[in-house]
Amino acid sequence: MPIRRSRPSWEVLSGDSADVYFARAQQILDREGLDPIVTMEVFARREAVLCGIDEAKTLLAHALADPADGALVEALDDGDLVVPKEVVLRIRARYRRFGLYETAFLGMLAQSTGWATAARECVEAAAPAPVISFGARHIHPDITDVLDYAAIVGGCVGASTPAGARMAGLAPTGTMPHSLVLIFGDTVRAAEAFDRDMDADVPRIVLVDTFRDEAEEALRVAQALGERLYGIRLDTPSERGRVTADLVLEVRARLDQAGFGHVRIVASGGLTPDRIRYFKDAGAPVDSYAVGSYISGATPIDFTGDIKEIEDRPIAKRGRIPGRTPSPRLRPVDLAVWKGD
Amino acid sequence: MPIRRSRPSWEVLSGDSADVYFARAQQILDREGLDPIVTMEVFARREAVLCGIDEAKTLLAHALADPADGALVEALDDGDLVVPKEVVLRIRARYRRFGLYETAFLGMLAQSTGWATAARECVEAAAPAPVISFGARHIHPDITDVLDYAAIVGGCVGASTPAGARMAGLAPTGTMPHSLVLIFGDTVRAAEAFDRDMDADVPRIVLVDTFRDEAEEALRVAQALGERLYGIRLDTPSERGRVTADLVLEVRARLDQAGFGHVRIVASGGLTPDRIRYFKDAGAPVDSYAVGSYISGATPIDFTGDIKEIEDRPIAKRGRIPGRTPSPRLRPVDLAVWKGD
Amino acid sequence: MPIRRSRPSWEVLSGDSADVYFARAQQILDREGLDPIVTMEVFARREAVLCGIDEAKTLLAHALADPADGALVEALDDGDLVVPKEVVLRIRARYRRFGLYETAFLGMLAQSTGWATAARECVEAAAPAPVISFGARHIHPDITDVLDYAAIVGGCVGASTPAGARMAGLAPTGTMPHSLVLIFGDTVRAAEAFDRDMDADVPRIVLVDTFRDEAEEALRVAQALGERLYGIRLDTPSERGRVTADLVLEVRARLDQAGFGHVRIVASGGLTPDRIRYFKDAGAPVDSYAVGSYISGATPIDFTGDIKEIEDRPIAKRGRIPGRTPSPRLRPVDLAVWKGD
Amino acid sequence: MPIRRSRPSWEVLSGDSADVYFARAQQILDREGLDPIVTMEVFARREAVLCGIDEAKTLLAHALADPADGALVEALDDGDLVVPKEVVLRIRARYRRFGLYETAFLGMLAQSTGWATAARECVEAAAPAPVISFGARHIHPDITDVLDYAAIVGGCVGASTPAGARMAGLAPTGTMPHSLVLIFGDTVRAAEAFDRDMDADVPRIVLVDTFRDEAEEALRVAQALGERLYGIRLDTPSERGRVTADLVLEVRARLDQAGFGHVRIVASGGLTPDRIRYFKDAGAPVDSYAVGSYISGATPIDFTGDIKEIEDRPIAKRGRIPGRTPSPRLRPVDLAVWKGD
Amino acid sequence: MPIRRSRPSWEVLSGDSADVYFARAQQILDREGLDPIVTMEVFARREAVLCGIDEAKTLLAHALADPADGALVEALDDGDLVVPKEVVLRIRARYRRFGLYETAFLGMLAQSTGWATAARECVEAAAPAPVISFGARHIHPDITDVLDYAAIVGGCVGASTPAGARMAGLAPTGTMPHSLVLIFGDTVRAAEAFDRDMDADVPRIVLVDTFRDEAEEALRVAQALGERLYGIRLDTPSERGRVTADLVLEVRARLDQAGFGHVRIVASGGLTPDRIRYFKDAGAPVDSYAVGSYISGATPIDFTGDIKEIEDRPIAKRGRIPGRTPSPRLRPVDLAVWKGD
Amino acid sequence: MPIRRSRPSWEVLSGDSADVYFARAQQILDREGLDPIVTMEVFARREAVLCGIDEAKTLLAHALADPADGALVEALDDGDLVVPKEVVLRIRARYRRFGLYETAFLGMLAQSTGWATAARECVEAAAPAPVISFGARHIHPDITDVLDYAAIVGGCVGASTPAGARMAGLAPTGTMPHSLVLIFGDTVRAAEAFDRDMDADVPRIVLVDTFRDEAEEALRVAQALGERLYGIRLDTPSERGRVTADLVLEVRARLDQAGFGHVRIVASGGLTPDRIRYFKDAGAPVDSYAVGSYISGATPIDFTGDIKEIEDRPIAKRGRIPGRTPSPRLRPVDLAVWKGD
Repeated sequence: MPIRRSRPSWEVLSGDSADVYFARAQQILDREGLDPIVTMEVFARREAVLCGIDEAKTLLAHALADPADGALVEALDDGDLVVPKEVVLRIRARYRRFGLYETAFLGMLAQSTGWATAARECVEAAAPAPVISFGARHIHPDITDVLDYAAIVGGCVGASTPAGARMAGLAPTGTMPHSLVLIFGDTVRAAEAFDRDMDADVPRIVLVDTFRDEAEEALRVAQALGERLYGIRLDTPSERGRVTADLVLEVRARLDQAGFGHVRIVASGGLTPDRIRYFKDAGAPVDSYAVGSYISGATPIDFTGDIKEIEDRPIAKRGRIPGRTPSPRLRPVDLAVWKGD
Repeated sequence: MPIRRSRPSWEVLSGDSADVYFARAQQILDREGLDPIVTMEVFARREAVLCGIDEAKTLLAHALADPADGALVEALDDGDLVVPKEVVLRIRARYRRFGLYETAFLGMLAQSTGWATAARECVEAAAPAPVISFGARHIHPDITDVLDYAAIVGGCVGASTPAGARMAGLAPTGTMPHSLVLIFGDTVRAAEAFDRDMDADVPRIVLVDTFRDEAEEALRVAQALGERLYGIRLDTPSERGRVTADLVLEVRARLDQAGFGHVRIVASGGLTPDRIRYFKDAGAPVDSYAVGSYISGATPIDFTGDIKEIEDRPIAKRGRIPGRTPSPRLRPVDLAVWKGD
Repeated sequence: MPIRRSRPSWEVLSGDSADVYFARAQQILDREGLDPIVTMEVFARREAVLCGIDEAKTLLAHALADPADGALVEALDDGDLVVPKEVVLRIRARYRRFGLYETAFLGMLAQSTGWATAARECVEAAAPAPVISFGARHIHPDITDVLDYAAIVGGCVGASTPAGARMAGLAPTGTMPHSLVLIFGDTVRAAEAFDRDMDADVPRIVLVDTFRDEAEEALRVAQALGERLYGIRLDTPSERGRVTADLVLEVRARLDQAGFGHVRIVASGGLTPDRIRYFKDAGAPVDSYAVGSYISGATPIDFTGDIKEIEDRPIAKRGRIPGRTPSPRLRPVDLAVWKGD
Repeated sequence: MPIRRSRPSWEVLSGDSADVYFARAQQILDREGLDPIVTMEVFARREAVLCGIDEAKTLLAHALADPADGALVEALDDGDLVVPKEVVLRIRARYRRFGLYETAFLGMLAQSTGWATAARECVEAAAPAPVISFGARHIHPDITDVLDYAAIVGGCVGASTPAGARMAGLAPTGTMPHSLVLIFGDTVRAAEAFDRDMDADVPRIVLVDTFRDEAEEALRVAQALGERLYGIRLDTPSERGRVTADLVLEVRARLDQAGFGHVRIVASGGLTPDRIRYFKDAGAPVDSYAVGSYISGATPIDFTGDIKEIEDRPIAKRGRIPGRTPSPRLRPVDLAVWKGD
Repeated sequence: MPIRRSRPSWEVLSGDSADVYFARAQQILDREGLDPIVTMEVFARREAVLCGIDEAKTLLAHALADPADGALVEALDDGDLVVPKEVVLRIRARYRRFGLYETAFLGMLAQSTGWATAARECVEAAAPAPVISFGARHIHPDITDVLDYAAIVGGCVGASTPAGARMAGLAPTGTMPHSLVLIFGDTVRAAEAFDRDMDADVPRIVLVDTFRDEAEEALRVAQALGERLYGIRLDTPSERGRVTADLVLEVRARLDQAGFGHVRIVASGGLTPDRIRYFKDAGAPVDSYAVGSYISGATPIDFTGDIKEIEDRPIAKRGRIPGRTPSPRLRPVDLAVWKGD
Repeated sequence: MPIRRSRPSWEVLSGDSADVYFARAQQILDREGLDPIVTMEVFARREAVLCGIDEAKTLLAHALADPADGALVEALDDGDLVVPKEVVLRIRARYRRFGLYETAFLGMLAQSTGWATAARECVEAAAPAPVISFGARHIHPDITDVLDYAAIVGGCVGASTPAGARMAGLAPTGTMPHSLVLIFGDTVRAAEAFDRDMDADVPRIVLVDTFRDEAEEALRVAQALGERLYGIRLDTPSERGRVTADLVLEVRARLDQAGFGHVRIVASGGLTPDRIRYFKDAGAPVDSYAVGSYISGATPIDFTGDIKEIEDRPIAKRGRIPGRTPSPRLRPVDLAVWKGD
């Protein structure tokens, strides 16, 4: 499933966004008349959920797709679980065809793999309850689609941006902003407008911490929307002690006592795998978790590209073992398909 | 100095990259016929070097520049040092004019401020030696320019991508990739080609850890390029124990003993403020530090946008204080200028 | 100021509540015809706010007041700050006159000194804001008066039990129980009844966390009682994240914005010196702190009674230095006065 | 087995020792003509050995025993092991009949349960060797009986005060004070007097650390008393390094070598569960442990009383779940029996 | 197997190297005409690999071998694993015959047992790869033979000093000093001279970190010596990051790729059991470990000599149990054999 | 002051106790006809009290004293405080004259410097009270003289072995062994014999922990010897809780109360700088400290010998800086004097 970001930007293809020393290397090799066939291998040093590799294939397809060049690309796929030092990408091509793109494809891998791996941690902590990616607000808007796609590759069942959800073939997920409640001046009035104005396929999930105590507000909203209320979202601010397991238990009990057993509870607000486990260990009946900065703020996972052969002869810089690394899981990449021709 | 990223992308302006609940709020307010004037304030919860605010101004200028709307924007500037909860941006405008962009401008602020703040930590640790941003390879290529600009705002004297350096009005900084040395098969031969083929204004900085021991290689390169050699870069891989203070001291001593006192030493490889302080405390004569993942992998610094007035009446959600926060440092933003009309 | 507990109970005077080996020792000495004049010194091993010594004087006065016996008692006073191993009580009398009471006077000292010292820690943390003792519910009701007296000796300005407050010459301090609010079904209705039915000299302090969010409830109560409202008490349960500094700041701001600057804020709920310092460090405008289990649950401070002379000759058990310890701060105790004859 | 403290004191029954806000609540409800039937549940938040509940039953019996009132009380019993949040007491009665006693019965539970739970920890650490409560000297003499009763509920086989031992139906346990040895001037002479003067049923246990080395003194005492010596007590002061496992081993060996295999060894002095385990892990043949401040200085275990129904309708304050908690272990309390009529 | 150090030095036999109070005790007893038969037992307080006991037997044999004296010595043997407080040596003899030697035999035991025990830790960490003792340079040259013997008793397969190896019946083990390489100015030239000049039975193990990168140098040496090269030693200095697991893996791979699979890898430089485990856990193919200061700098293991009988009557100082300790593992020592007569 | 160990042993001079690779290097150089003049520098990596250097000078004097050879040796002296990497010894001579002795002189330096440095730590902790070295029993008897000399170089005022004390020009220091007390069966009888039989210049210091409590025994001994008693030694075994500050205080007080203010208190038993500081911080009046294993079990301080010039041309192995290190404190060594010719 090639992602929708099908054409690399001008900045990437021109090297304008690459480390300048790659452009310089191209220029020197050009002037010296050198362009050997090199074999490069790419790997990370820790266990991870691989992501960004499909975007990297698209980039390499634009660079190397000319069949006359005889370039060979082998790779794993988005979503593969990789072990430390496992080769995820191997390129055999003339160096000047792709050397300039090393910064770009390493960056795609590093950031997306960091996000997907963090998402997986949350998903494993929350299972069987689902996790949704809500982290768009912590990263640059030009890559929120990439974030949300990576979160879904890591196991999230939904994401908050239309662009990201679309990349993963899903509809975006969301509730309502505090702004809306503030403008209506009352949670119930905001909820009623939401119910009145939204398409039928948008689940009615109402944020209940804006003005009053969550337990009180949850009951008011449930009484107002009745069967149409899909769920309520608890997002208690840190100034009020964050969402606690006891709060979830109490809201669940009060809803059930009032006959609103169908109303689901979504928790959000500074969630991490540890915090998710705290809810589970305390028996708090959270129906789904909306995770933000733990995923979007995940540290990129560093990838390294090493030249292992030049003109098919083993070579390596100090510290690395010359020659190809046995990598039986690598699969050939059909560059024409990935270029989208 | 407005940055060059002057026009927000279609995805940002359309809300395609925003949390979907903002689009839904717009739709509800539209159907309900509501569009109050609201005052929103934006702040972070920790001390930071503010960055991304100028890019946010450009975005808001595109949304709010019509003078007929009477929107008022006040803000601080890129590079300002902010304290916890200090207001960095205040918008007074009809909500439907800008509500959709909250995800985008918070994301610009979060990521750039995270990078600039991490860069500042390195710069303070290294002073008076300069720091260069080398982190492009850890993040998505569509935002390497934003990274490098933020690193420079944080105090770095250079950055490795042409796009990023240009945003800050500088030339890009770089040495040579290991690939080039491997293709030439010898550090000295690669250095000679570099010297032969590069423009005169590119400093000759040669990477000396590819094939042989760094001290040996540094002397060989210095003998080959003589006065034209600007510096050598030590980037010893972890498999060889990383760059140590003793290595720097020894290379410096051997270069000096051989009459190459003019050759500068650039250190790189997993540098952090602690590692930089280690070099300084050990008296290692590093002339400049090239920092990668500590800056580019910095966790975004979360920003929050709160509605504090509606139709000029104080209001706030639970946990926040209604009404405007005294913010004497805020300066009015001339939206027409920032739109670039 | 002798405390009101003027007459020791039968259990104490009979030795029924003492370690049985003291009664046995009395019996043996009686049968052997021994009753030497001994000098006993009492001390603790840590710095502390001394308390219980006045109650011990009353006990000793009942045992030793007969002038014919020639007993001499020297002591410090309740509230004195003592250093490790400082002698707080010295008794020179025939052993059979007082040996049986060692368990009792050591117990009075241990528990009261433990409480007073813990109270002092809270008072020092909170200064200049005052501290009130609310810990009666954690200890046996037969000694709540002793607890509250000790807390006041340690620096508290008030205490919650009538008996304890009376011992210190004060009126008891309190607000209202959650039960009252629950029975009225609404905080405002409960507050109005409180205001209607209480004597004028009882400060109107209303508990505002029973049904709704504290900030909302504080405003409702202030609007109902107006100038007559003395203060509100924040006692948020742990299920709602306890009282936070931000909550105090917000409630203060919302009260002030609504013109209720005169309403004081009392904080309670699991307070400790660390938690009090957290409020102060965060600038939270708490007007007074109500402390419970930190004071009432304080570990007793162990006191030791050593015989240092027999018939005025220095002696001591292994591990102790024979003879009187220089103790210039000791003051003679007028036994007749303390007996209350 | 109702304890002997059958009649609550005037201070408790009058509310003089209660938090004043309960008295105020009574007064308000009286003036407002309110006296609903409420259901209150009492629980702790940690695992514990329940104690004080029988004393609370006696108190409630005095308040609620009039059959005309139809009050219903259900409870667990002293010695029950309870889990966190388990209901230990449920009262359904008119509020004004018992509201005033909340401070008292919570305090009875908190302090006694704290002591019994600490005693249990020591007992489990020492098993199969027995533990004796020696902590009277650290608490107020008015409650040493309550302490010793609680320690026995927690599993101690004996206690040092006559009053406490009697409450549990036992004879008090003890050896001799250091004072006695000092007055006789020699351990053997003191032991001989003890043996001469005490009733036959008092075990001859002699303290052997007053003047000389314990091993030397133990042999001297054994030689003097022979078969009549029941045991020796080691209570080495901290100035001499406390009782060590090696000391016990050596004293045991020297006694055995001299033919005194029948003499038991009692250890005391700052014992805690950890210290007891140290002796056991080291194989030190301690025959019984006398524990003081670890039990008597145990922090009270906080109990909470929540109104869960008013006029049989579920209600609760914020943070609690309205309505009765399923509590199958609760047993009805026969108030007439507990009142002792 | 009596060790070669068969005759104690004059200093030991004269008491010149003993604690002076033993000489004084001899003198006093002489003047007082006392010379009882005493039984002394010697033990350590921790688990250990016993060593030095055979040297102690030789010393005692010189002191006590006269059959007329009837001295009885029982002991364990070098290499026995002992448990805490286990008796390793028991002497029954007239005190003046051996009292003077207590300092000497305790010292022999303490230092050798410390070394053997540390060696055992390394050997267990490295198994099945062998360990060699290289620690002579950290201790006084008069006892390097004792060190190396103890290391072999602890399980090392070789040691670097001729004297020490001979004591254990082995040939010494070694490679070449850095000095040799420096004097030849090139590792290959030094290796060739080593190969040319050494006897055939000396394994050709070449140090490869003197001038160039280890991987490069290892290949050069292997090419020069071919099949005659037994192994290379990696001893990377800390200034170059010490020997890392990755370095071993890479050197192994590069040697194998070049057809030198027969060349063994010896690792040295600050090795400890933890560091050895690091290599094993990382899968680094080290063929043998050369350990220096971890063994030679091991803290001596304290031994104590207690008199337990005088004229066959049990006695002991305070803190010890009088009489012989059951010690079934002790074996009689034939003094005449150990004296070497 | 050359130490008395004037002539190196045969094992050292023959290389039998050296790392075998030095002998092999000698053999190779001989066969290759090489014997360059080299300059070697010796240094440690940590701050230390230098010791063993004078013994090393004697060794080098025997190797290099022939004036025809023109060897130059520069060095610091025993007792000098050195900083990390400071050169303590520089040799310029034909390599084959001294290369074989590198193991020996490094070992002399490592062990003696380790001991002297540990002694200094104790001395600084104890000042102004003096420290005595009592550690002979933890090390091999062949080097107890070297230990005691090093301890005195580190600041100890005395040492327990005659050989060691003589090397430092002092009389040995000691009290009496437990054995003597045991043989006499009573501390006072042993003390009286000691007093009767020893020369007048031996201070009467009596060990008082063998049979009875220290405080009791100290008084008995003082009464027996009166003015002739110089001091008592407290050496309480760990089974009795070691020597505590309180014990010292009490013994001092009891001696003073009985008129024995002139009797000094020596403390011993597991003393370390921390333990010494504990006594001082507690105000315990210890007159001198006898330290054993902290000094004698000190880890050797590693010294390194680097060749820095060959035939006066700078050279160094990887990781070191070629050429002589500026070392203004080095002083020329007169080899003839040190050889003792």
